[in-house]
Amino acid sequence: MGVECDIDDLPKNDANHTALTPLWFLERAALVHPTRRSIIHGSRHYTWFQTYQRCRRFASALSNHSIGHANTVAVIAPNIPAFYEAHFGIPMAGAVLNAINIRLNAPAIAFLLAHSSTAAVIVDQEFFSVAEESLKIWSEKSESFKPPILVVIGDENCHPKVLSHCVARGAVEYETFLEGGDPEFKWKPPQDEWQSIAVGYTSGTTASPKGVVLHHRGAYLMSLSGALHWGMSEGAVYLWTLPMFHCNGWCYPWTLAALCGTNICMRQVTAKAVYAAIVKYKVTHFCAAPVVLNSILNASSEEAILPLPHVVQVNTAGAPPPPSLIAEMSQRGFRVTHTYGLSETYGPSTICAWKPEWESLPIEQLAQLKARQGVRYIALEGLEVMNPKTMQPVPADGATVGEIMMRGNAVMKGYLKNPKANKEAFANGWFHSGDLAVKHKDGYIEIKDRSKDIIISGGENISSVEIENVLFSHPEILEASVVARPDEKWGESPCAFVTLKEGVDGSNEQRLVEDIVKFCRSRMPAYWVPKSVVFGPLPKTAAGKTQKALLRAKAKEMGPSRKSKL
Amino acid sequence: MGVECDIDDLPKNDANHTALTPLWFLERAALVHPTRRSIIHGSRHYTWFQTYQRCRRFASALSNHSIGHANTVAVIAPNIPAFYEAHFGIPMAGAVLNAINIRLNAPAIAFLLAHSSTAAVIVDQEFFSVAEESLKIWSEKSESFKPPILVVIGDENCHPKVLSHCVARGAVEYETFLEGGDPEFKWKPPQDEWQSIAVGYTSGTTASPKGVVLHHRGAYLMSLSGALHWGMSEGAVYLWTLPMFHCNGWCYPWTLAALCGTNICMRQVTAKAVYAAIVKYKVTHFCAAPVVLNSILNASSEEAILPLPHVVQVNTAGAPPPPSLIAEMSQRGFRVTHTYGLSETYGPSTICAWKPEWESLPIEQLAQLKARQGVRYIALEGLEVMNPKTMQPVPADGATVGEIMMRGNAVMKGYLKNPKANKEAFANGWFHSGDLAVKHKDGYIEIKDRSKDIIISGGENISSVEIENVLFSHPEILEASVVARPDEKWGESPCAFVTLKEGVDGSNEQRLVEDIVKFCRSRMPAYWVPKSVVFGPLPKTAAGKTQKALLRAKAKEMGPSRKSKL
Repeated sequence: MGVECDIDDLPKNDANHTALTPLWFLERAALVHPTRRSIIHGSRHYTWFQTYQRCRRFASALSNHSIGHANTVAVIAPNIPAFYEAHFGIPMAGAVLNAINIRLNAPAIAFLLAHSSTAAVIVDQEFFSVAEESLKIWSEKSESFKPPILVVIGDENCHPKVLSHCVARGAVEYETFLEGGDPEFKWKPPQDEWQSIAVGYTSGTTASPKGVVLHHRGAYLMSLSGALHWGMSEGAVYLWTLPMFHCNGWCYPWTLAALCGTNICMRQVTAKAVYAAIVKYKVTHFCAAPVVLNSILNASSEEAILPLPHVVQVNTAGAPPPPSLIAEMSQRGFRVTHTYGLSETYGPSTICAWKPEWESLPIEQLAQLKARQGVRYIALEGLEVMNPKTMQPVPADGATVGEIMMRGNAVMKGYLKNPKANKEAFANGWFHSGDLAVKHKDGYIEIKDRSKDIIISGGENISSVEIENVLFSHPEILEASVVARPDEKWGESPCAFVTLKEGVDGSNEQRLVEDIVKFCRSRMPAYWVPKSVVFGPLPKTAAGKTQKALLRAKAKEMGPSRKSKL
Repeated sequence: MGVECDIDDLPKNDANHTALTPLWFLERAALVHPTRRSIIHGSRHYTWFQTYQRCRRFASALSNHSIGHANTVAVIAPNIPAFYEAHFGIPMAGAVLNAINIRLNAPAIAFLLAHSSTAAVIVDQEFFSVAEESLKIWSEKSESFKPPILVVIGDENCHPKVLSHCVARGAVEYETFLEGGDPEFKWKPPQDEWQSIAVGYTSGTTASPKGVVLHHRGAYLMSLSGALHWGMSEGAVYLWTLPMFHCNGWCYPWTLAALCGTNICMRQVTAKAVYAAIVKYKVTHFCAAPVVLNSILNASSEEAILPLPHVVQVNTAGAPPPPSLIAEMSQRGFRVTHTYGLSETYGPSTICAWKPEWESLPIEQLAQLKARQGVRYIALEGLEVMNPKTMQPVPADGATVGEIMMRGNAVMKGYLKNPKANKEAFANGWFHSGDLAVKHKDGYIEIKDRSKDIIISGGENISSVEIENVLFSHPEILEASVVARPDEKWGESPCAFVTLKEGVDGSNEQRLVEDIVKFCRSRMPAYWVPKSVVFGPLPKTAAGKTQKALLRAKAKEMGPSRKSKL
């Protein structure tokens, strides 16, 4: 074609190329809106200028302790300002944030700290003793143990004695730690945007949790995607109901800096506190697993402030939301967007993108459409439902089940020190999610189950999610989870674990079971109807996911269900 | 620190890494909103499904002609659907889009085609003869000339004879060209996101225009930045007033695909057509240089539809908007955002970010704040006003003038085949914009002038922009441009070229000049007051920029101004 000089012969230089990292967002927020509130937590609040300075102090203090590139720093805390700061201060030092689930016990935390070779532990005073215990376990198990730096964060209502106790036991107080750092610390973007920014352990209920490693590039892209898809714009006011330790708060710590918005922190999430914050701070957005939405819906009239003074956008993921829940939330003025993802995809990476033509549908039908997992985020360049054996996409018929596969910049770097798991996860050039779904005619995907949650009864696959959706719409049921129970005749049969709403008389179980079974019979194929119904609270992970593995174990303990009628 | 295994030891693979390119946006739009209108142009309209298919046909047809990686394809067209399609079809084939200014003459176009070694020319029928002529000039000047493929796009009201004439002269009709392509063409993202996506020539009025080369990564990032900063969200309705040949329409062709929005095309931009489109299509956003805003403001009562039925967001750049213009637009219900950038930064890359505390200011003061160039886009990681000799930032005092310097992912790859210009542009690791500015206390930058537009009178620098801003606020002046005129006493003195508003009696020039000078005297230092005032239309580039070089030449021709009073 007579190209005299290749148009691609123009190299990168300092002026025209730099690594993508969400750290740029914070620098920019401090420049553009230095006096705007960045974080509000009870009576404490910071401006973006202050937050930038505090994060630079954080990074500088870590550097002073020779913590930098490829070192891991663990944080054990609820949604407090220091945790927000950790999302910037740690990577600004070049280090990797390990956000630890606060509901884990000491042996579990010890495993994580050892596995990620933690160089520092930043712990909220409430969790100081469990952190100390986990360090002890680690030190006893490993000869190469080198005690990490221990930093303790004082609660806003913390008694000085509590802190001095921690300090006496070798910890540095967080504010003292920051004071040792330089507020003008000259942080640098990573040399390579593929550099790790965070590691987060899956809340798997199986033996060894896997460390999901994320990079600066992905965090940058997903922070922006999470804003664009959700119609979040400059100056959003975001309420921290979702734990930051859950997939780094779905990247929203970084998004809020990109939008120069305001973070509303809260130590404990209660329905009352959520409503109060919405009104007081004019909250525009929050994220929550369906279980949290449930508690908001079922708040007492003293707790709830209804009607809402303005529309509040809610992003829900973590478990498929029952359509009834979406419908009820929307009746109360919450606009629910359903997204789906995994720790391995920086949190949500698919969205049930809204279509104006749905507006005119009856609310129940609309809620069903909205309960689907939808389509890919912009930063997830590939999403398919495939037969994992043939790697062929399933037809878009809404019926053929396959495994959800993903590829693109929203997929993790890999699992830490786990080549076997990486090989499996990335087989054939796609990330294997382990979730089973169908693809609808409109291209939207809908989860039918986790591979391991499917119930196989008489050779037929039964989706536990579909049964749960029906149970959720029962007027007396607050929550439900369905698992496989061994069955004499069918191999497996559905077993429902059910929590009743407050005020429901649970004394006559027989009556309740009959009523629930009757309710199900009229709404699903006979072989789907639960053969066993068990009442009581559901075991949950910190992220609000029901621990189905525990329920499966319980169902197994119950022994095989028999042919007799329930 | 006892790192047993580097947390960065996780390689890229097909599942977790792909090149950033705006081409992904189109694939996604076709998947998520296949039936939504992508483009409307008079009676023609397309859906996102159709646009995706047409772009794949486009890419496939180019491939069939062996046009691919590193080949350049020129487009000479107004804002019609085919031009939109070119922003995807050409890079999908791996080739580079060269969007040519339709107001250039044949010799100028010949230079561009030769310089970029054009492999194909896609031309709107209205510009067929100029394209033909430019190819002739090129062929005569170069021995290695190989005729590019010539594709002609038929106008919506095109007479068949016109097209058959073009076809007889060797051109392929655009729709026929597309039909030869495969609608299922398997396009691939570039192997490297640094690959070139577009080359655009600066509308420099100096001898040789420079070819600004942009890459896929930058186009991706700037498309998203342009949406985020402007509060543009899913489903935006965008009116094409800004020429797509101007910095690739400031990346908005790609943004619209990312947002699954709707493009309203128009062959000719008139105030009447703009108002009509706003009402008919519920336009939410458009971009325009101040000159276009001026014509919208000064539309007759038959042309204008006021009050506007809804708020319309306007992004203006290309020349500093006079505060009076911003104030008047806002009074009519347009919400004006002022951005600033260059071809070298993918169009606008700084924004005068809005602050809620400005709300309560008097409209004039507010407009002055909004007329500043502001702060960096998210995708521009560095913005400074510096002394180019010392490379030290100027103090944020609103007074010290320095050169605007930029760095980051929003900066071009470089100029095509121009190592000397690249060396100068990228000296000391920053892109040198050539624009002079101050930095205000709040960190916002404000342009004082182009380096070459500054007027040096008696050793004092005078900003032509500041004088223009005053002239713009004169009730009888539609437009004004101020340049240096040689001056016997002072070296240079300000010379104002002025266009009067419609209906103003221009017969008594003496009266008008006296009035304008008096107006200026009360509003600026005496030495700023124009010593010469010339009436008539201002010469413009296609992008709406006043061609100051022409005015400077004219002022020079007028000879030195004398000591005599004006």
